[in-house]
Amino acid sequence: MNLAELTQRYDDQLRTGDFADIDASANGLQVGPDDPESVTVERVAFAVDAAEQTIEEAVEWGADALVVHHGLSWGGIERVTGRDYRRIAPLIENDVALYVSHLPLDSHPELGNAAGIADLLGLESREPFGRMGPEHIGQQGHGEFTREELGELLADELDTGGQGVRGFDFGPDEIEHVAIVTGSGADWLDEAVDVGADALVTGEGKQKVYHEAREAELNVFLAGHYATETFGVRSLESLAEDWGMVTTFIDAPTGL
Amino acid sequence: MNLAELTQRYDDQLRTGDFADIDASANGLQVGPDDPESVTVERVAFAVDAAEQTIEEAVEWGADALVVHHGLSWGGIERVTGRDYRRIAPLIENDVALYVSHLPLDSHPELGNAAGIADLLGLESREPFGRMGPEHIGQQGHGEFTREELGELLADELDTGGQGVRGFDFGPDEIEHVAIVTGSGADWLDEAVDVGADALVTGEGKQKVYHEAREAELNVFLAGHYATETFGVRSLESLAEDWGMVTTFIDAPTGL
Amino acid sequence: MNLAELTQRYDDQLRTGDFADIDASANGLQVGPDDPESVTVERVAFAVDAAEQTIEEAVEWGADALVVHHGLSWGGIERVTGRDYRRIAPLIENDVALYVSHLPLDSHPELGNAAGIADLLGLESREPFGRMGPEHIGQQGHGEFTREELGELLADELDTGGQGVRGFDFGPDEIEHVAIVTGSGADWLDEAVDVGADALVTGEGKQKVYHEAREAELNVFLAGHYATETFGVRSLESLAEDWGMVTTFIDAPTGL
Amino acid sequence: MNLAELTQRYDDQLRTGDFADIDASANGLQVGPDDPESVTVERVAFAVDAAEQTIEEAVEWGADALVVHHGLSWGGIERVTGRDYRRIAPLIENDVALYVSHLPLDSHPELGNAAGIADLLGLESREPFGRMGPEHIGQQGHGEFTREELGELLADELDTGGQGVRGFDFGPDEIEHVAIVTGSGADWLDEAVDVGADALVTGEGKQKVYHEAREAELNVFLAGHYATETFGVRSLESLAEDWGMVTTFIDAPTGL
Amino acid sequence: MNLAELTQRYDDQLRTGDFADIDASANGLQVGPDDPESVTVERVAFAVDAAEQTIEEAVEWGADALVVHHGLSWGGIERVTGRDYRRIAPLIENDVALYVSHLPLDSHPELGNAAGIADLLGLESREPFGRMGPEHIGQQGHGEFTREELGELLADELDTGGQGVRGFDFGPDEIEHVAIVTGSGADWLDEAVDVGADALVTGEGKQKVYHEAREAELNVFLAGHYATETFGVRSLESLAEDWGMVTTFIDAPTGL
Amino acid sequence: MNLAELTQRYDDQLRTGDFADIDASANGLQVGPDDPESVTVERVAFAVDAAEQTIEEAVEWGADALVVHHGLSWGGIERVTGRDYRRIAPLIENDVALYVSHLPLDSHPELGNAAGIADLLGLESREPFGRMGPEHIGQQGHGEFTREELGELLADELDTGGQGVRGFDFGPDEIEHVAIVTGSGADWLDEAVDVGADALVTGEGKQKVYHEAREAELNVFLAGHYATETFGVRSLESLAEDWGMVTTFIDAPTGL
Repeated sequence: MNLAELTQRYDDQLRTGDFADIDASANGLQVGPDDPESVTVERVAFAVDAAEQTIEEAVEWGADALVVHHGLSWGGIERVTGRDYRRIAPLIENDVALYVSHLPLDSHPELGNAAGIADLLGLESREPFGRMGPEHIGQQGHGEFTREELGELLADELDTGGQGVRGFDFGPDEIEHVAIVTGSGADWLDEAVDVGADALVTGEGKQKVYHEAREAELNVFLAGHYATETFGVRSLESLAEDWGMVTTFIDAPTGL
Repeated sequence: MNLAELTQRYDDQLRTGDFADIDASANGLQVGPDDPESVTVERVAFAVDAAEQTIEEAVEWGADALVVHHGLSWGGIERVTGRDYRRIAPLIENDVALYVSHLPLDSHPELGNAAGIADLLGLESREPFGRMGPEHIGQQGHGEFTREELGELLADELDTGGQGVRGFDFGPDEIEHVAIVTGSGADWLDEAVDVGADALVTGEGKQKVYHEAREAELNVFLAGHYATETFGVRSLESLAEDWGMVTTFIDAPTGL
Repeated sequence: MNLAELTQRYDDQLRTGDFADIDASANGLQVGPDDPESVTVERVAFAVDAAEQTIEEAVEWGADALVVHHGLSWGGIERVTGRDYRRIAPLIENDVALYVSHLPLDSHPELGNAAGIADLLGLESREPFGRMGPEHIGQQGHGEFTREELGELLADELDTGGQGVRGFDFGPDEIEHVAIVTGSGADWLDEAVDVGADALVTGEGKQKVYHEAREAELNVFLAGHYATETFGVRSLESLAEDWGMVTTFIDAPTGL
Repeated sequence: MNLAELTQRYDDQLRTGDFADIDASANGLQVGPDDPESVTVERVAFAVDAAEQTIEEAVEWGADALVVHHGLSWGGIERVTGRDYRRIAPLIENDVALYVSHLPLDSHPELGNAAGIADLLGLESREPFGRMGPEHIGQQGHGEFTREELGELLADELDTGGQGVRGFDFGPDEIEHVAIVTGSGADWLDEAVDVGADALVTGEGKQKVYHEAREAELNVFLAGHYATETFGVRSLESLAEDWGMVTTFIDAPTGL
Repeated sequence: MNLAELTQRYDDQLRTGDFADIDASANGLQVGPDDPESVTVERVAFAVDAAEQTIEEAVEWGADALVVHHGLSWGGIERVTGRDYRRIAPLIENDVALYVSHLPLDSHPELGNAAGIADLLGLESREPFGRMGPEHIGQQGHGEFTREELGELLADELDTGGQGVRGFDFGPDEIEHVAIVTGSGADWLDEAVDVGADALVTGEGKQKVYHEAREAELNVFLAGHYATETFGVRSLESLAEDWGMVTTFIDAPTGL
Repeated sequence: MNLAELTQRYDDQLRTGDFADIDASANGLQVGPDDPESVTVERVAFAVDAAEQTIEEAVEWGADALVVHHGLSWGGIERVTGRDYRRIAPLIENDVALYVSHLPLDSHPELGNAAGIADLLGLESREPFGRMGPEHIGQQGHGEFTREELGELLADELDTGGQGVRGFDFGPDEIEHVAIVTGSGADWLDEAVDVGADALVTGEGKQKVYHEAREAELNVFLAGHYATETFGVRSLESLAEDWGMVTTFIDAPTGL
């Protein structure tokens, strides 16, 4: 498959264009050759973050393309110097294209990060959660857990890099309704309360989330930004395999 | 002392007005009576966050005023309902004034949060660090530590609520130059590199800080948002004691 | 009825959400308890303005809620001090919720302020008037009056607090088509001309309206900001009575 | 004198350039010939408002220039049609230049509108009042009046077009400190309280000023927008007389 | 026909209102009398630019109205002095109304400027080109030309004021697909590449267009801003003739 | 010299930092290695535009750095794809750093583009011209020319790529005062009139400049965007030679 077609397939699946006005990330092909139609893609690497570490591994593995959740361009690259040079240069020098999907991948009801957590928890009656402009970037659904069970399930199944899952146990012991925004989802705490959720599952916290959860009597689970956001790129990896690509997932946990 | 005078003294010390254009927080008297000159203040409580928990304790202790780092108004209170009602109502019903100092308190070279960390580490040749518009909200200085020593010193002296201090040990083993922005200071990583620091000490992390530190070969210590921001309000407590007030510090660690 | 239900009913009737982007006023429940579902509302007071005077009367009367046209939050309350403290504190201390409806109430074709004037004048073939973004905040309609009759009708029927109705008699003696924007409606003079109105009825004037009316040969009646804006809240009072509430209207004319 | 020189003299006296960023009005020469240096100005008319009525009178009187406080361009003239055509066409057809001074004339400590009121009241220890960005657009000063005396003095000396002076007598009976913003000055009520004024004198009111004055226990006098703003243009008329011009003041009270 | 009706007919044909948010030009009647319904229009002049030269010729010819592509108000006329006075004064003094159509006229698929070039080139399968917000301001279509033929056709048929047509011959020798944005269209080069055009025809260039065309291997023809924009006003002239007007086209080429 | 020092020297000479708020161009080092201090620069190429053509020549010549007036980042590079990839990739692959100076180089009174034209014309009593925020981006000065002489001097001395110099001869035959803004300077025509210039010299025109020059009776010379902007980079080349570098100027005229 050529790079233009790969890009087009992902953009179609993820509705990349619908997120142009609400995502600072330049989603889609972010670093790539002059003429994507002339570049054949056989080997595709996947990672959560585009960083020196993951880019180097992609290069060593011989990737034609690297697909990530967190890319390099957030509102435009002012200068290709320092950090940006360090990351862009090896991509260019080794002919590795970079494809990025940030909020479109958070949002997707089957392929997305929140969908991955929902699958892991076996949630039913799933609906979109986490309003961001006209879109949603998370998921909500129903199950039956004690608070301890939910925490342990996350801790067991997610690779938190040894940091574990932190829980603010301010809500009910029995959890039926779970709201999920992966990564940095503390700002959707109020929406979780509004929809009647018993627990909010997210990645990293913010100072304010402690008291807000305490006062709203909501259980909050902080399972790690990295740990909650490997699902989406792994889904994209499966798609690539279906399309006949040779793939690899580059695991570079941040512990955050 | 009446409330108007207390407010004036803190505003003068902290240069509250100089931060009006760069701080979303409405610093100074944030909740208070119609006529602050007619209200006598004898008992003053201090806390990091204005939240239901700390406000309740202040009320129980019989505070005339509560002084905090994180207040309630960040760009204006849209409605006095829900969370805002929960926090504002007990202040009003119990005649407790709320005084807030966010960035002015981070910034202060003797009273501030970063200054408190710098004191704890015994840094010398101290200078402002952490540019924010025309001001600085952190500190930098020099000492002699191994990386392990610095991490242990922070872990021993700070009350991290059992979370410990997390270190990204990407920089040199010997640390001489330390840059500090308390709370959420990951965005000043590049400035730390620019000034030649060997380590950045801050409170909470963000996903991106891992790779940025790794690539910049900088040591980063995440010592907790709460744990790094008790110094400023404790300094204000000392001032109040000097002025003859009865004071208390309400410790409500968030573990974040 | 509990407060949450009362709020919901008013919001539904008035299409509160549709005005969120065009009204600086935070319409809906503006000051209210943590859990509106647990608060029973039996006694509801109504007033044009939320001010110390009307709030005190509502408290004395034993109101559970006060419903007003002009509330307290116009783009966010920066600090609960001074004037805002004076108005918010008695609401909180006496458990009086504050419900606000500004432009939604101006706009409503049956319940609204302009609709009330149109009823008073017996206008027929009524249509929306007074464009504001995608909405209209006034009314227009047809009748048969001499200019003197229209002025006297307004003066007799409205309680202008002794200020009377001021008329700029630059238009035709016979008035058939009347445009109405209550309160401060001088900015809709051009639209009144465009729709072919013979007269514009509004509340308070602005310096520019004299010459604009003179040059456009339009009759303009300034009947008082307060006097033209009691209709809406009185309509909401009728609704509350229908719902079984005990109600009162607190008349606090400003003479403006 | 040629028109360029007249314009330059007024701009210098009034510091026109200093108000460019804070005044929507395009101050200075607003309608005028291609080459102001070639136009001799001998007869200059003065009025508060540039409107059909005053422009016609200026034309009939044979004015070479008309000097006003309220001009035609507030943020740019979108089209020279309708009202703007009606006002601009006779200026052009009769070779009458239009010079405008809005906030610069409100502000001037000797020539300005507020200064004129202060003179009328015989205020001493005068200082600027009415902050607007880096400038002030009013005056404050001290005298000795009962509230009744002050109201009567304004009513007797100002030509309010029969509307009289309205007073909100919420402040002290004895007035020593008076703050003045002519025209529409209700938004400076809080600053009047902050500087310790006993009364605010302005032109037109706004609905909110009643309750704000009542709660702040401030006397407010509404003496008419037109009536309080004839002083500035009359001062400019005196200057023109000093410079040897033939002048006239076109009195067109709006009653507002 | 009266002026109001003429204005209405053009506005309807050109969908003037649909361009209000994307065009800095105040399209429609831009300079005109107080009451357009009372003004009879018999003689209409047409020109590309409203300037002293074209306005003088319109006056000499005895025009009741002048219809142009480039008018006088681009975001509002700050002052009617200098250049604006020079252009507006003769319109007013000689009762010549000014009607303007900028982007609506560029855009129109039959009457417009790009449509005129497409007609001249005999393009088939024509579609809109040149996205600007929700509208298009150019045309694209198919034909069969060598590059030389296309250049010569433009040079022969357009009146470039002796400047000729400049071609950047970086694209294929055989041209089938032509994209057109008249006037200053260099910013649509990328869209021309995206739609697969072999050549972009526009009026004036910008420094950047040389290298962008060279790298994109696109033929670009710069045929003159004036020369490519006479079509639209000539189409409006034909309409006026159909409506029984006496018309003239004032040719004032800028050579740009 | 290492790249960091070269960058610093140019930034100091050109006051790069002073233009950060008024220039869309990211001036200074725009594409460069991770650690500029470790990169030795011996061979520096200079060009007006950073484009595929000039970058290829710089690479072939073996440049360590390329210094240009028009760079690649104007408000941020959204994606390193297509045109940006084409230009950035060969810089990175061949270790050529890109240094950019846009308005700082236009502005410089000795090294700048306008200064180069002023030197060529032998202007005296030179002063800054062409206000842009707090800076000037052109020059003005005095000489003695007939209009023909000035046009011929420009045509003879500038390499206009065969396009010649276009003159709008609307001003006086004898030219004493010349205003210069190189590149696209038509927007400074009014300032040229205001300072009393007899001629404006710039690079490329805009449609409006014809009539504006005609009405202002100003001579305007369009000498080509490229042709008027080679001076600045040639000055920087001289500096580099003084610093011991091997240099080359890559001439790639656009004819615009």
